[in-house]
Amino acid sequence: MNYQTVKGMRDFLPEEMLVRKKIFETAQTVLEKYGFAPLDTPALEYEETLTAKSGEDVKKELFAFKDKGGRKVGLRFDLTVPTSRVLANNPHLVMPFKRYQYGKAWRYGEIKKGRYREFYQFDIDSFGSNSMVTDAEIVAAVLEVYKKLGLNIIMRVNNRKILADMMDYAGIPKKLWQEAFRAIDKLDKVGLKGVEKELVDRGISKESCKKIIRLIGTDSLNKLKKILGGCEGIKELEELTGYLKSFNVKNYVIDVSLARGLDYYTGPVFEASCKDIKVSVGGGGRYDNLIKILSGRDVPATGFSLGIEPIFELLKSKSKQASSTKVFVASVKPEFDKKVVGLAQKMRKAGMNVETDLMGRSLKKQLDYVSKKGIPFVIIIGEKELKEKKFTVRDMKTGKQRKTGFEEVMKLFGKG
Amino acid sequence: MNYQTVKGMRDFLPEEMLVRKKIFETAQTVLEKYGFAPLDTPALEYEETLTAKSGEDVKKELFAFKDKGGRKVGLRFDLTVPTSRVLANNPHLVMPFKRYQYGKAWRYGEIKKGRYREFYQFDIDSFGSNSMVTDAEIVAAVLEVYKKLGLNIIMRVNNRKILADMMDYAGIPKKLWQEAFRAIDKLDKVGLKGVEKELVDRGISKESCKKIIRLIGTDSLNKLKKILGGCEGIKELEELTGYLKSFNVKNYVIDVSLARGLDYYTGPVFEASCKDIKVSVGGGGRYDNLIKILSGRDVPATGFSLGIEPIFELLKSKSKQASSTKVFVASVKPEFDKKVVGLAQKMRKAGMNVETDLMGRSLKKQLDYVSKKGIPFVIIIGEKELKEKKFTVRDMKTGKQRKTGFEEVMKLFGKG
Repeated sequence: MNYQTVKGMRDFLPEEMLVRKKIFETAQTVLEKYGFAPLDTPALEYEETLTAKSGEDVKKELFAFKDKGGRKVGLRFDLTVPTSRVLANNPHLVMPFKRYQYGKAWRYGEIKKGRYREFYQFDIDSFGSNSMVTDAEIVAAVLEVYKKLGLNIIMRVNNRKILADMMDYAGIPKKLWQEAFRAIDKLDKVGLKGVEKELVDRGISKESCKKIIRLIGTDSLNKLKKILGGCEGIKELEELTGYLKSFNVKNYVIDVSLARGLDYYTGPVFEASCKDIKVSVGGGGRYDNLIKILSGRDVPATGFSLGIEPIFELLKSKSKQASSTKVFVASVKPEFDKKVVGLAQKMRKAGMNVETDLMGRSLKKQLDYVSKKGIPFVIIIGEKELKEKKFTVRDMKTGKQRKTGFEEVMKLFGKG
Repeated sequence: MNYQTVKGMRDFLPEEMLVRKKIFETAQTVLEKYGFAPLDTPALEYEETLTAKSGEDVKKELFAFKDKGGRKVGLRFDLTVPTSRVLANNPHLVMPFKRYQYGKAWRYGEIKKGRYREFYQFDIDSFGSNSMVTDAEIVAAVLEVYKKLGLNIIMRVNNRKILADMMDYAGIPKKLWQEAFRAIDKLDKVGLKGVEKELVDRGISKESCKKIIRLIGTDSLNKLKKILGGCEGIKELEELTGYLKSFNVKNYVIDVSLARGLDYYTGPVFEASCKDIKVSVGGGGRYDNLIKILSGRDVPATGFSLGIEPIFELLKSKSKQASSTKVFVASVKPEFDKKVVGLAQKMRKAGMNVETDLMGRSLKKQLDYVSKKGIPFVIIIGEKELKEKKFTVRDMKTGKQRKTGFEEVMKLFGKG
């Protein structure tokens, strides 16, 4: 028998899954505060649905096969195509349709560090509204998710229309835009001089280069407006930042060099990065044409995708517990086990996460288990403790012990 | 383009997904109080792993195919096989290993009412302990899950060893056991007379029938003990009920006619049914040999599977909201929208689930949206309200309105 996981796929043991669960739960709680609701779709879609509008690279990486009825099916490679199908199928959906969806997606790609063939996606999207308040709401909501996770995040904000106007202003022909965007996207890494070199290398004229460098070096929207004139993108960006103020959002910067995914986005674009270590932990933007292409239904849309893997990498070092148990109630002798169960059950009733020994083990072995599992506190129950109704509570980190009554135990570990 | 879901599979729109989410969240919270921790495994497994020990019926229903590297893979049909693989792969796992896992599984079966080809499973299992305290802990934990979900549940409890002793006592040859179990399992529906007829029809002698009927009509363990003598199953059942008392569990009955899944279980068996409408909402038991067969590792095990679909059917009628939004802050005129956003954001900061209009709609259309989405309360913001800093709060169910200040709004909808 083969006990390996399928190549490119992983098990998540409790240590890791508890961290992922925290990410999912935090995101759900915050997003529901803003009126986003959960959607769920099957892992399998008809191959035709998955490939109708997707590029060759997606087709190449599809887990596709025929089911036992001869139907051509495949595992979803993202959550956008299934949601577009839901929009096409449910004309009665009340607009705006604000949904979040998380779950696994599958791509048969090259396996690299941090890249697997099965991975979690977490998408948040608003369908049906053209207003910039919608984009601001998504930025506010996801920034609150990061904050609740304890991450120090800055959101970079730009607008695809500004980039288009910049290209026009610099006289760059449309067929070179994608090249220019790739060069500009490197600003963070290579600086203005580096971008200039990249632009020239990619066949953009010296004169165009100068203009671009001047624009992306601009640090205020007003200066940019003076150069570009009445730009729709700047107007949208001003509307967006106006709403961000109402949402009391401060940790964002306007970055006219942000160019992400331009074949897809039509307006605002966002990218969240960790302040301390400059790693991208999510991104998104407005994509008003895509849903029509995918579903035939003309619905404006804006959304954000949380980077579950990079967020997980940032959080996993903080927690090493293999359970969320807070207290282990240990028994000095096996014959006290029913008393121990009774006490543990009372503590659970008060909302605490409690474990007891299930293996009839010695106290030493019970404490071994506790330290292997990373459980922070132990209550030790012996003859004396049962008589006196006083319990010895040990803090496993400091090794300190104290004797307390039941009421105090409840106060120590209770939820209020 | 094909907009249908794959045959036998379903989308879950927010109305339904919110109910499922409640089931998953409640179960997770309760199970973690008892020290169970989440595990996650891939949707795909090697076909060899899935079929090594499974019957023909499972093989027939497998979604199996070759990946692009020619590897024979398949979608998991349950969560027990993947967990057995995890046990085989991770010899370092600290025992007892108490895990819960929920997620989708796939079977290409006949599509009937309530039976789909993609479905959620939710398994809770303890690995590594022989003690009946483990079985009692699982019963206590799942009964608390049902209670927290508002379901009125009774747990039927039996032991596979009692059934075996009953068969021996009645002189039924082993090859007819499975037939006898099927007949006995019908007691609830057809009564003692009906079971007797079923037994005879299935080729069991009149004499054996009488003995069986006498045994399953017995209403106390003591009487049963007198008839069967020193039965290991009764001893285990007494241990189990002793521990259930320590867990303060009362809503169970001993039912010696409970026979579920006997080729698999080795000790206690459980089945949870709804008191009001006698529908099974989950079941489980001890299976000490299965993990060795599946993983080569000799690990005792006991577990329970929550019936997500029947639980969902019982709960879904209770809730019809398409979001978990509690209050919609409506704006009389579009120019107040930033004030509205600001107020909503303050309410969110206090933990409330709040929505505002994103479409620049009239008050009437905003109220339309609110009633379509089933949002219970509306706060209406107009010129007067902004000046007086008093807000009109409307209860959408009763239609009653009242004017209140911000502090009172916080008290009305806040979390404390």
